Amino acid sequence: MVTGHVFIATSLDGFIAREDGSIDWLDMPGVEVEDHGFNEMMASVDGLIMGRGTYEKVLEFGAWPYNKPVIVLTKSLKASAIPKHLQDNVSFCSDEPEQLMQSLAGWKRAYIDGGSVIRSFLSAGLIEDMVLTRIPVLIGRGIPLFGPLLKDVRLLHIDTVAYPSGLVTSRYRVVAHE
Amino acid sequence: MVTGHVFIATSLDGFIAREDGSIDWLDMPGVEVEDHGFNEMMASVDGLIMGRGTYEKVLEFGAWPYNKPVIVLTKSLKASAIPKHLQDNVSFCSDEPEQLMQSLAGWKRAYIDGGSVIRSFLSAGLIEDMVLTRIPVLIGRGIPLFGPLLKDVRLLHIDTVAYPSGLVTSRYRVVAHE
Repeated sequence: MVTGHVFIATSLDGFIAREDGSIDWLDMPGVEVEDHGFNEMMASVDGLIMGRGTYEKVLEFGAWPYNKPVIVLTKSLKASAIPKHLQDNVSFCSDEPEQLMQSLAGWKRAYIDGGSVIRSFLSAGLIEDMVLTRIPVLIGRGIPLFGPLLKDVRLLHIDTVAYPSGLVTSRYRVVAHE
Repeated sequence: MVTGHVFIATSLDGFIAREDGSIDWLDMPGVEVEDHGFNEMMASVDGLIMGRGTYEKVLEFGAWPYNKPVIVLTKSLKASAIPKHLQDNVSFCSDEPEQLMQSLAGWKRAYIDGGSVIRSFLSAGLIEDMVLTRIPVLIGRGIPLFGPLLKDVRLLHIDTVAYPSGLVTSRYRVVAHE
């Protein structure tokens, strides 16, 4: 079955966005010129699975940043809502995580994105590894990356890189749900 | 005035203890034999300031682990509650953070410990640097290290060390409250 892979940045206090979804605090001097491994990660996956919130946030960016298939997990959006220029790239799906992953014939690796989608895939044991980047700022409130779990999730630390900008990226493999 | 310094470990999802205060998840193979800088930190401070919850947790350990003065911030505990063998080491205080720090004549550096005390000292601009150690486990729920702030707190990343056990320690200097 296809494996799930996370690549995401949070504030030092664990948020992926402010409560209103804004990510202004991600802008830091020097970050733009650094290679944090995003392109390598994108090249390694067959496509992305993300939540509605993440999808709508990416739409706001203007230019669509992905050159791989994107599956948006949503029970509310209708396929007719997909903008014309994205109809070859984006599809909507209301499956449960395991059901979706089992249906992805031909995919080996999926990039799992967005807080609630990551949490549901983690709980379902569908995440193989996570690359977490810490931005050196505390924002106090926001949308958390992590949340309640059915049981502890033990991780194996693979490596950590600290960048001149102050970003710190750690790679973990999910080893066990205890 | 004395400067405040944080040295604390959290789960990867940002908790310093489970909801019931337990820290069983801190026990990991190989951690005991590593030097994460705790002794160096302790040698560099003139004393500790901690909250009641942290104090009561440390009391449970049995042997008192600190050889420096400990000030416990509490509005409820009475000095008479301090065990006899600790009366030379521990004092209770109900001052606000700034008032306390200004009163510490002769102290240069204070180790600030415990989630809510760290947050109140951060909000008051009394923390100079923080050494945060990430334990490679997600526990889902618990007592968070960080919480709401009056404004963003920008940090300068100083250095990061990844240990063979999987612990990752990052040192940050507090640069600005925006």
